[in-house]
Order: sequence, then structure tokens, then C-alpha cells
Amino acid sequence: MSDYTPPVDDIRFVMNEVADLGDLLATERFGHVDADTIHDIVAEVGRFMVDVVAPTNVDGDRIGAQWHDDGSVTMPESFHTAFQGWVASGFGAMPFDSEFGGADFPWISAIAVQELFTTSNMALSLCPLLTQGAIDAIHAHGSDEQRATYLPKMLTSEWTGTMNLTEPHAGSDVGAVTTKAEPNGDGSWKITGSKIFITFGEHDLAEQIIHLVLARTPGSPPGTKGISMFLVPKFVLDADGNPGERNAATCSSIEHKLGIHGSPTCVMQFEEATGWLVGNEHDGMRNMFTMMNNARLSVGLQGLSVSDRAYQRSLQYAQDREQGSAIGAPKGTSSPIIEHPDVRRMLMTQRAWIDAMRCLVYTNAAALDRSDAAADADESRAWRELADLMIPLSKGICTDVCNEMTSLALQIHGGMGFVEETGAAQHYRDARIAAIYEGTNGIQAADLVGRKLAMRNGAVLTELLDTFDQRAATLADIDGLGGFSTQLSAAVATARTATEHLLSIAGTDPRSLLGSSTPYLRLIGTTVCAGLLAKAAIATTDAEGYDAGFLAAKRESAAFFGEQILPTVNGLLPAVLSTSDRLYALDATQLL
Amino acid sequence: MSDYTPPVDDIRFVMNEVADLGDLLATERFGHVDADTIHDIVAEVGRFMVDVVAPTNVDGDRIGAQWHDDGSVTMPESFHTAFQGWVASGFGAMPFDSEFGGADFPWISAIAVQELFTTSNMALSLCPLLTQGAIDAIHAHGSDEQRATYLPKMLTSEWTGTMNLTEPHAGSDVGAVTTKAEPNGDGSWKITGSKIFITFGEHDLAEQIIHLVLARTPGSPPGTKGISMFLVPKFVLDADGNPGERNAATCSSIEHKLGIHGSPTCVMQFEEATGWLVGNEHDGMRNMFTMMNNARLSVGLQGLSVSDRAYQRSLQYAQDREQGSAIGAPKGTSSPIIEHPDVRRMLMTQRAWIDAMRCLVYTNAAALDRSDAAADADESRAWRELADLMIPLSKGICTDVCNEMTSLALQIHGGMGFVEETGAAQHYRDARIAAIYEGTNGIQAADLVGRKLAMRNGAVLTELLDTFDQRAATLADIDGLGGFSTQLSAAVATARTATEHLLSIAGTDPRSLLGSSTPYLRLIGTTVCAGLLAKAAIATTDAEGYDAGFLAAKRESAAFFGEQILPTVNGLLPAVLSTSDRLYALDATQLL
Repeated sequence: MSDYTPPVDDIRFVMNEVADLGDLLATERFGHVDADTIHDIVAEVGRFMVDVVAPTNVDGDRIGAQWHDDGSVTMPESFHTAFQGWVASGFGAMPFDSEFGGADFPWISAIAVQELFTTSNMALSLCPLLTQGAIDAIHAHGSDEQRATYLPKMLTSEWTGTMNLTEPHAGSDVGAVTTKAEPNGDGSWKITGSKIFITFGEHDLAEQIIHLVLARTPGSPPGTKGISMFLVPKFVLDADGNPGERNAATCSSIEHKLGIHGSPTCVMQFEEATGWLVGNEHDGMRNMFTMMNNARLSVGLQGLSVSDRAYQRSLQYAQDREQGSAIGAPKGTSSPIIEHPDVRRMLMTQRAWIDAMRCLVYTNAAALDRSDAAADADESRAWRELADLMIPLSKGICTDVCNEMTSLALQIHGGMGFVEETGAAQHYRDARIAAIYEGTNGIQAADLVGRKLAMRNGAVLTELLDTFDQRAATLADIDGLGGFSTQLSAAVATARTATEHLLSIAGTDPRSLLGSSTPYLRLIGTTVCAGLLAKAAIATTDAEGYDAGFLAAKRESAAFFGEQILPTVNGLLPAVLSTSDRLYALDATQLL
Repeated sequence: MSDYTPPVDDIRFVMNEVADLGDLLATERFGHVDADTIHDIVAEVGRFMVDVVAPTNVDGDRIGAQWHDDGSVTMPESFHTAFQGWVASGFGAMPFDSEFGGADFPWISAIAVQELFTTSNMALSLCPLLTQGAIDAIHAHGSDEQRATYLPKMLTSEWTGTMNLTEPHAGSDVGAVTTKAEPNGDGSWKITGSKIFITFGEHDLAEQIIHLVLARTPGSPPGTKGISMFLVPKFVLDADGNPGERNAATCSSIEHKLGIHGSPTCVMQFEEATGWLVGNEHDGMRNMFTMMNNARLSVGLQGLSVSDRAYQRSLQYAQDREQGSAIGAPKGTSSPIIEHPDVRRMLMTQRAWIDAMRCLVYTNAAALDRSDAAADADESRAWRELADLMIPLSKGICTDVCNEMTSLALQIHGGMGFVEETGAAQHYRDARIAAIYEGTNGIQAADLVGRKLAMRNGAVLTELLDTFDQRAATLADIDGLGGFSTQLSAAVATARTATEHLLSIAGTDPRSLLGSSTPYLRLIGTTVCAGLLAKAAIATTDAEGYDAGFLAAKRESAAFFGEQILPTVNGLLPAVLSTSDRLYALDATQLL
């Protein structure tokens, strides 16, 4: 029995009422899918996660991935059972090409599966997540033979995938890659180099691991333009297409980390390992970018997922734990702490942010799908721009907020939250990586004020803000949502001021632009969350197929966010409007 | 060699220019102390901490306190060396009564010693910290014989002290204590019960441990009024006053915690242990409160200390780590990440908050000292009220902010921050307890809007705000501080609005009062930090005895806080002004 309740109705509500699933499924591209099927599958996935995956989360933390002298990495026994169940379920193949065993479902349905998996066991969920990325890259850039050879087994997760990008001392600087690829003359290449931070680079859950490795071919130009992508299987396939000879791609150690102990973070050594070029030579970076939006959205989703698991635990604790007398309770009686106002605030803050994050991530996913399903190039581009704008918000906001929400959930436990046995601390630790990997949140902020704000000179964002103004007007006429309306209008005005300022300095003062990027990301991300929650709140007035109590809760949660969380954006404006002068006023000795 | 640089000049500056050390030492009470002596001692303590204590921090985390089947708890070897050095140094006795071996120095000097110890090794610093609390209680409430018997050895830390308050399922609810005390008829008592979360309840650093234990005597009234305090030594003293027979006070286990692994958090079993009443029967709670202000201030100080250690580490990393090209640097060159604007923001945010926290904690300590040193009861009461007002701010703000600052410090490390070997994660984990113990920050917020705001119907706070208005006017005329001036005036106005609102509902709507307490604490605490930084900034125009570069740095840091951090208080006002209606709108099923 698990302590996790899959938020199946919440997902259905956000898909239908906020992310406009109906419109998506009305396109020709997804005409073969109906909404009820998606919701039924989500419910089924939820049951699977509760029964099979969620109970393994604690093993991941306490036993973790274990590296051995022979270079092997063994996973907890319960992970094996859960992963075999996952492979058998076929859920992982849902969004992929039916030619290779998928169901051609929209990405938003994969996001729902991912949410439930990640909430159940973030560490284990990284294995299918990385595999998805590798599938995307091979599908988009691989040869027909590569697709036919590798994708069917990867879609089922029988074979898993990795992304080998970072090198020691290179970090986020992909252009600094030094791993070498030399042609063998038979179409294959010899790959030599070291890679670090390789998630699930080695493990014993699957019979085969397909590494995608960035490397430089002889005579290639320096920087990112000289990088190519190679497919390096753990076992070179034999004539029948089965894993054969062990390739020289080995794990020399795994990291001792703050959290996600159940996810092996490998140092990989490629010593003349045999690989095959994926796509064109020197197109490695472009191929990488294929996966980047999906990967960043999925990491944003991790913020939502871990927040939800931590929240559910804290809600249960707040109901069980008795301490002090609630206001109005007979003196000397003990009340559940959920009755205390400050505990309520911690719970409502989590509830509201979780709703907000779900709106953000699913709307972002739907925009990717709409771009994919668009009838023409202009429509596709418009959706793509919206999706691109939202990616750094989904990634940056959800992962920063998750650090705060898992901290609130821990705080509700009082001293017990600091004791590892309670489980609250694991979420706090696990969550902390999400603001770092797939591009630190600083990089997300730079992406927002750089590439994303530059799209149509800011119009992609300002047009979105226009729709929020319209929603603010609608909210004003709904009982109990007047305060939300007022704050949404104010926040949109703040967001416009901030945006106009950054657009005005973008060409002349890049240092101030970047210096303001992090408070700007928080400001815009929070405003966008509120604009989407406004849509949710408006929908509660006429949405059908939900309990009245459920709809009332969605409305309250949105109103709480609008009235009490959203106004914090106004406090961020001075930092956004500041120049970078004060940031650079002190030298290193003065900083100390 | 340690990676820690004691902020000796920063402490001297804050003591002299912000906390008005000169005025304090001009009192009769502290006439025997001069400022240079204090500063010299702080510098000497700093050298000791760098050489002896700071290098042990990592052992505390990796080896930690270890519990054994026989109930003993052993500490890392390096802790023994460091603690023996501490005992030999005599620094711990500084603020205590000269009758028992102290130097009668003001509390602010003890705070400086504590800051340096805590920054060097938070886990180990808890041992002298708890000992200080026990000294305070025995000094204030013990009999002459108890004082003479126990204090001299405790002042040197040869004997350490503990506070046994919490019981299983009682948490912060002290009134729920069930541990029993029964008279032996010879002046001693038999103590029986279980206590949890007992910091340094058992260890092998000292030959003796003096437990102060809250328990109920026969026929005592229920709740807090029936609680008495007992002194229970680990070894009952023999006729010569030396540790003799082992008492029945044993450690049955220690907690497995998120952080401060080097501090044993003990479950203590008292099985007819021999103890002696401290103070009067039923006065246990009152005795406890003697220690509470000091203890809460010290925990606030922990927030400052751990932030500083984490910051110094991140500053070093930002200078060493090269990645990407800084704006304006030749394309293709690698720059230290300290050159990137967003990294600068993370560093300046830490620098400014650390300065702010130091102003807050030392000013709070000085107010305690001034109350102690006051010429008459009215003056003493006035300083006491100011100190009391600041206690929940020091504790709540510094510990919440520390969670954020250690997170920023970790973030600067990128993926390496999530790898435990880097050390950044230890600070993030260690810090997390400070917002919980010595009264959770929710309890601090309740204390602020309840007891503290009620003092003279809010005038203690509003008079402090008046002085901030005066400082804002002064700032307006100083070059480069106009922006700070404007924001300080605005923040004070916001603080007044928030305060007037809470005062208006305090008698009629306690639920909304408490529901607003946490955003209110952040709002007021941030404003008070800014008001104290304003004093620091003004002082930089004419302070003598500091490098010009040092003073310029203090001014920049204060201005950054005022212009870019302080304005966030305005975004908190709507939450403070809200009623608790939305907090209670959802029942537990709807919250899920």
C-alpha cells in the first residue's frame, strides 16, 4: 500500500479545461485519439504507480544504485520488479511513432504518465526519461536502419538510453567537448573520451543500454559547430540484432549525491568504443536541441511531481499529528495541526503552487503538440513560439518553486521532518537537482531574456499577457474572484513594464539584461501561472463532469494564488529594472 | 589549512557602528571591558577556529556521532582534539559571572565567539551552545550550592549541559510533559520518563554531562503550570565533587538526520535517575524561559553562520571555475563564472543578506546587554522590549533566509553542488534544522504577532520604524544611496500598514492574525534588516579604522539590499492584509 494518491481528476481537469485537450484531439494529426481513452489510461497508470512504483521510492534513497569494482552498477531489488512492470505495461511507448510500436498519442499524454511516474519515484523515472530523449534523437536524426534496429526495443524500455554530453571541466559549456571519434573505415567509429554526470549510464535493469555520445571527428572546427552525435551501444549487436560483444563503454564510478540516490550518475569511459554516427557529421548540437525542449519540460515536470509527493505527505501528517489547541477548541484539548492557521497557510501555498505548476507544464506540452498538429506552417510556428517561450518558465519556475514547496512540506513535520525516517527530507534532497540539470535555472533565465524575448521582439509574450487581461476582466464578474481579477491586472501591468524595460536594453546592455534575468523569470513565470489559473477558475463556473467540491477547491486554490502569491511579482520589479552596476561594484576581495 | 576566513572586520564594524558597542561599554555594568579587548579576542578566536575547528566540519558530516549498543555515543577523533582546544582556550566562559570563572563580558561578545564557532562547525558548536543554556538556568535559578558545584566546570566546558524538554508526541507542546519526579526524602528526586531530540544528550567529549530535565512532581497541576526543572548529572558526584556513580540517564538511540550529523540527537531514558530540583517546584517553565531568548538568538545566529560558510565556499568556486565567455571577453575564451551577471546576482544576494543578518543578530544581542546594563528599571524595560521584539525576527528571518542562501551557494556550484564531496550540500542540509528547533518559525511568527506586537500596543515596533524614517531621510543626502532611501521609506510605510492592520484585528480575529503571521514576519524582519543596514551605510561616510575598500563594500552591499531585496516586502502586503477565509475554505479531502 502506498501513501501516494494519483491526482487523476486534477490532471483531467487541467488537460480538458486549461490545456484544451479537446481542441488538440480535434486536429487531423490526433484524430485517432479520444480524450476518454487518455483519461482512462492516466487512471490505469495511476493505479500501476501506486501499486508498483511508489512503494520503491524509499529503497532508491536508502539502498540506492551501487557501483562495483568490475564497473557494474546494481539497482535495488524492488526497482527490478517495478521496471519489469513498466516494460510489460507498454505505457512508455504511448507518444511515439506507431511504426516502431508506439500509439502516436500526443505529448501531453506522455507528460501525464511522466508526472505519475516521477511523483512515485523520481530517481527511477529518470531511466525512461533519458530513454525517451534518446528515442527522440534517433527517430529525428537516425538512419532508417538505426530507427528500425534500435527504436522498437527502446520504446518498450527493454533497452534504455542515455545522453553523453558533459565532460570533466566542461559543465554547461558543450562547445568544450574533447571526446574524439575516428572512422574505422567500415561505417563505424572509434569513440574515445570521458563523460561525467551520465544518468543511468550503467545499471542492471535492462539487457542493453544505448548511449548517445557527443564527440569531435578529425579536423572538425572548434566549438559547438564541430560536434557530432554517435550511437554507442553497451553491447554491439550481433548478426541477429541481439546484444553481442561488450563495447568499451564502461562506468568507472558513480557520484555520491545529495539526493536521487536511486539514479546512478555515472562517470563513463569510452576507450575506442564502437559507435555509429547519428545524423550528419557536425550536426551533433542541432540533434541535441531536438531533445532539449522535451527534456527541459520534463525537468520542470519533476518540480511539480516531487512537490506533489511531498505535499501529500505533509497533508497526511498535518491531519494525524495533534499538538496545541486550535483557536476555539476547548482549552487543554489537543488539535490536529492542520487546524492551526500557519499550517493551513503552508498547505494552501503548496496546493496552489501545485495547481499552478500543473497548468504551466500541461499547457506547455499542449503547445508543443499543437505545433506538431497544426494545419499549416504559420499556425505551427505560432504554437511553437508559445511552447518555446514557456519552456524556460516551466523548467525554471517549477524547479525553483519545488525547492520551496518541499521545504514547506518538511517544515510542517517539525523536528520529525529533519529525521530521515519520516521521508520528508528525501523529497527535499531529491528535488534539489532539478534547478541545476538540463541547463541551470540561470541558463533558463538567460534563454528567456535572450532567445525567447527576442522572438517577434517580445510579442509572443505580450500577446499572451493580452489574453490574461481579458481573463482578468472575466474574473471580475465571478463571485469571489474579484480580488484575483485585481491582482492579475496589476501583475500583467508589472510584467509589461518589466518586459518593455528589458526589450529596451537588450541591444545595448547585455550585462544588465542578464543581471535582471532571474528575478524576471520569477516575475513572468508567476504571472503566467496566474493567467493559466485564471482560465481554470473561469472554467469552474461551467465545467461538466467534476464534483462540485472538486471545482470549488480548484477555484479557491486559484483565488488564493491570485490574491496572496501573485502579488509577490510586484516586489521583484525594482530588481528587474536595476542596472548591473551594483552587481559588479565589488571585486572578489571586497565580496569576501 | 581551512577554507574559512573569519569575518573579523565585519564583526568589528557591526559591533561598533551598528550595535553601538561603545555606548554599551560606557555603562557601569561593563566598564571593566574595552572594545579593543573584545576585537582582539574575536580575532584570536577567529584564528583558533580556522586552525582547529573549521577543518573538523566535514568529519562531523561523514563520520558523525555514532551510537553503540551499550548506550555510549562516540564522536569523531578530530572533534576530541577541537573540543579539548576549546576547553583549554577558555573562550566559552567569557560572558559569564566572574564568581564562577567567567569574565563578565557582554553577551554580544559571546555572540561573536558563537558566530565563529558555528560557521566553523555548526554540529560541534551545539555542544557549548546547550552548555551555555544550562549555565544560564543554573545561574539564574539554582541554589548557591548548585551554582558552586556545577558552574565552574561548565563554564570551561569540561562538563557539558543539555536541556531535556520534548517528549515523544509532545513536540512544541511543553505542557504535555509526562516525565515524573518523586521525592527520595533526602532532598533528591527520582526522575522517570523518556525525552527525545536531546542535543548532545550523550557523547564522549567530556567527563560529565549535566542534564536539565522538565518533569512533574506528585500532585502537580496539569499543563505548563505543573512542570518543574531538575538537574540530573550523568555521573552522580562523589563526596569530593567529582563524577562518581553512573546515573540512570541513558541514551537509547540517536536520530538519523538530514544534517548536523556531528551533533548526536538523543533519545534519553530516565529510569529513577537521581536529580535535584532547580529553583522552585512548578517553576520549570519560567526557568526555561530564562534561556529562551538567548537560545533563539543563537539559533538565528546559526542562520547567519552557515550562510557565511556556504557563501565563502561559493565565492571561491565562482572564482576558480571557468565556463563560457564573459560579456566583452574574446570569443572562445573561458571566463571564471564570477564574471557572469547571474552568478554575480547570487553572490551579491548572499553578501547583502549576510551583512543584514549580522546587523540584526548583533543589534539584538546588544539590546539584551543594554537591558542588563541599564541605569534604571525604565531604561532596562525599554531595551528589553526592543530585544524581545527582535528575537522572533532574528530567529525567523535568519533561519529562513539561510535555507535560501545555502541553496544559492549550492546552485553556484552547478552539478558539482549536488555531489556531496564538494561540501556545498552539507551546508544546505545542516542549515535546514534551524528553522525548526527552538520553536519552529511558525511559532516565532505567532510570538511576533501575539506577545511581541502586543507590547505597548505595537509602539515598540512603530518607534523603531520612526528611527528608520529618520535614516531614510539621511540616506537621501548621501551619494549613491538615494534609491535605498526611497525604498526604505516605502518599506516602512508598508510595515506600518501591515502593523496597523494586525493591531486592528488582534482582539477580534485571532485566526486571521495567525494566518498572516508568517508573511508579516518576513515583511517586518526584512524591513528591520534594511533599517539597520541604513545605519551601517550612513556610518560608512565617517567611520574610522577601516579600509576605504571595506567601507565602500559595506555601502554597496547595503544599497543592493535596499534597492533590490527590500522591495520584496511590498509584494507580501496583500497576504498580510488577507483574512484567513481562504486558508480554511477547503476541507482535507479537497486539499488533496
